[in-house]
Amino acid sequence: MSGMASRRVEKTDLEAFIVRVLQACGVPGDDAAEVAQLMAEADLIGADGHGVFRLPQYAERIQAGGINTRPVISVHSERAAMAVLDGDNALGHLVMSRAAELAVKKAATTGVAWVGAHHSNHAGPASLYARMALRKDMIGLYVAVGSANHLPPWGGTDMLLSTNPIAVAIPSGQNPPIVLDMATTVAAYGKVKTKAQRGEAMPEGWMIDKMGNPLTDPKRAGEGFLLPIGGPKGYGLALIFGLLAGTLNGAAFGRDVVDFNADSKTVTNTGHFVIALDIAAFTDVEDFKRHVDDIWAQMKGSAKLPGFSEIRLPGERLAKTRAENAANGIAIPAELGAQLDALATSLDVAGL
Amino acid sequence: MSGMASRRVEKTDLEAFIVRVLQACGVPGDDAAEVAQLMAEADLIGADGHGVFRLPQYAERIQAGGINTRPVISVHSERAAMAVLDGDNALGHLVMSRAAELAVKKAATTGVAWVGAHHSNHAGPASLYARMALRKDMIGLYVAVGSANHLPPWGGTDMLLSTNPIAVAIPSGQNPPIVLDMATTVAAYGKVKTKAQRGEAMPEGWMIDKMGNPLTDPKRAGEGFLLPIGGPKGYGLALIFGLLAGTLNGAAFGRDVVDFNADSKTVTNTGHFVIALDIAAFTDVEDFKRHVDDIWAQMKGSAKLPGFSEIRLPGERLAKTRAENAANGIAIPAELGAQLDALATSLDVAGL
Repeated sequence: MSGMASRRVEKTDLEAFIVRVLQACGVPGDDAAEVAQLMAEADLIGADGHGVFRLPQYAERIQAGGINTRPVISVHSERAAMAVLDGDNALGHLVMSRAAELAVKKAATTGVAWVGAHHSNHAGPASLYARMALRKDMIGLYVAVGSANHLPPWGGTDMLLSTNPIAVAIPSGQNPPIVLDMATTVAAYGKVKTKAQRGEAMPEGWMIDKMGNPLTDPKRAGEGFLLPIGGPKGYGLALIFGLLAGTLNGAAFGRDVVDFNADSKTVTNTGHFVIALDIAAFTDVEDFKRHVDDIWAQMKGSAKLPGFSEIRLPGERLAKTRAENAANGIAIPAELGAQLDALATSLDVAGL
Repeated sequence: MSGMASRRVEKTDLEAFIVRVLQACGVPGDDAAEVAQLMAEADLIGADGHGVFRLPQYAERIQAGGINTRPVISVHSERAAMAVLDGDNALGHLVMSRAAELAVKKAATTGVAWVGAHHSNHAGPASLYARMALRKDMIGLYVAVGSANHLPPWGGTDMLLSTNPIAVAIPSGQNPPIVLDMATTVAAYGKVKTKAQRGEAMPEGWMIDKMGNPLTDPKRAGEGFLLPIGGPKGYGLALIFGLLAGTLNGAAFGRDVVDFNADSKTVTNTGHFVIALDIAAFTDVEDFKRHVDDIWAQMKGSAKLPGFSEIRLPGERLAKTRAENAANGIAIPAELGAQLDALATSLDVAGL
């Protein structure tokens, strides 16, 4: 279907396509189905820079031997309220699903649990794993070491830090869950790529060059670096998240981070962690949800600044996009569609 | 000593003075000593907006009946890896010391523990409680609902959020601990007050007025509000931290937050939480510290942007200031000294 305009596909069709591709690369059926479900969910919620968009890259890495398709994910260390998983270089989705599952299971007893992982890989959007806790009326948090370094320490020019994202998911009563999913930089690197594709300039404040001057041409992105939120504060957050998700888990951080965009062979040793909090251990769950609804209403009801038509809560757009895409299908831009068709052809599987 | 220039005092003298004042206000000796030690520590580390500077306000609140001087701090709910304390409207320092102590005790068994509190009060700088975990080779995190609302939701103008700070303390080997202590706003409100005192303008980006225009005159701070770091991202963080430190603990958040600068009587029902992570549960402690030293060296060794003479790690300045103040005494500006003298006179205790 290469060369055609943007089209919309059903989530189930997208999942089936991802399964075909992963299986053709040697991923067993059960694992392929689990990864496909999470990748398609990423597209469904509008995190389209982390969904099927990544499939050609994953396929390339698997074929280059950079991902283990027959992993044995195991517990490296464990106590009542924590564990570190050894991901055995599996696809990150498999590792972090196990991590979230284990965190939720432990938190049901201990109230709170923290499960980290090393020898994992890129796992898609952070919100996926924070949201897993919601099914059990728990709060979920997720932090990862990003899969490429895009910023230096504050005042420096050596690329030593990733955009290390955090996601937090909190259930509400009448409203969608509150879901924050953010990079510690003003703009995620994916947004820079999008600007470049569209031939648009970036606003000042996204990037600077090595002389400290604003960099607004996204085609020159390689000559500069992303700016952290709040200057030294965002640098501090990226550093702390890297130490907690990377160093504490025995995973890569700093100079050891492999740029998985440029290198499909070297084992990344990606680190992440998930926290689950069992709300029932703290307070009455329904009462908590009513309070979250009240906070939601307070924010929504605020008087507005000139130029703003509404106040948004984190997670509101995610829920809206998810419902729209479930009803109308997931948009696949023409360029991506062509890439996926080429991938299908190269693997001799049916296209999307 | 009113009217004199800035002077320097020993930490022990400062502590003894705080004890005299708190005891004169009806705080029992043991509690007064514990609070004084933490308040003086705040001054020692250079968090001078959260140390003895707050003493006149605490005294006023105690005398107005807004703080309980005979609290029974109790466990409201508990599981193996978590607890919520009922602070019984005690001075926040007492509540959060208990919380940190309990978190460390639990984490020694469960690996990770999360202890929140409600019916607490202002407890000084966030780093105090994160750093308590360091004594046991643990990592500490602390989050609080701030004691006054200084920002609206993103796109709004109703003051519904505080600068809700986070602190994280991570031990190193050869270097000072990495200690991040940051508000979720570009500038903390204390910095605005300092600019006003000095008659200086604020940089653009700290505050905007209700029309969305930059506000740079700190004397007009009441007409505008602080800007969150990274715009909607900082708003998201302030919201999430408020839900976790406030709502989840049954503490005030949003409209219920009492502005303790303006109101010394109403019970604040302040919420905070502390997390302790036992490094030994994750990995070998000495090995971890060596890795943190390596990350420290990587950041320090980065090439620098024009205009920067060094790269700083979070906690580096804290350690330096602490050593300097321990050697030379803690600076008490003349204006603060006069306020403390007046406080001593009003309570009929010996001055500083």
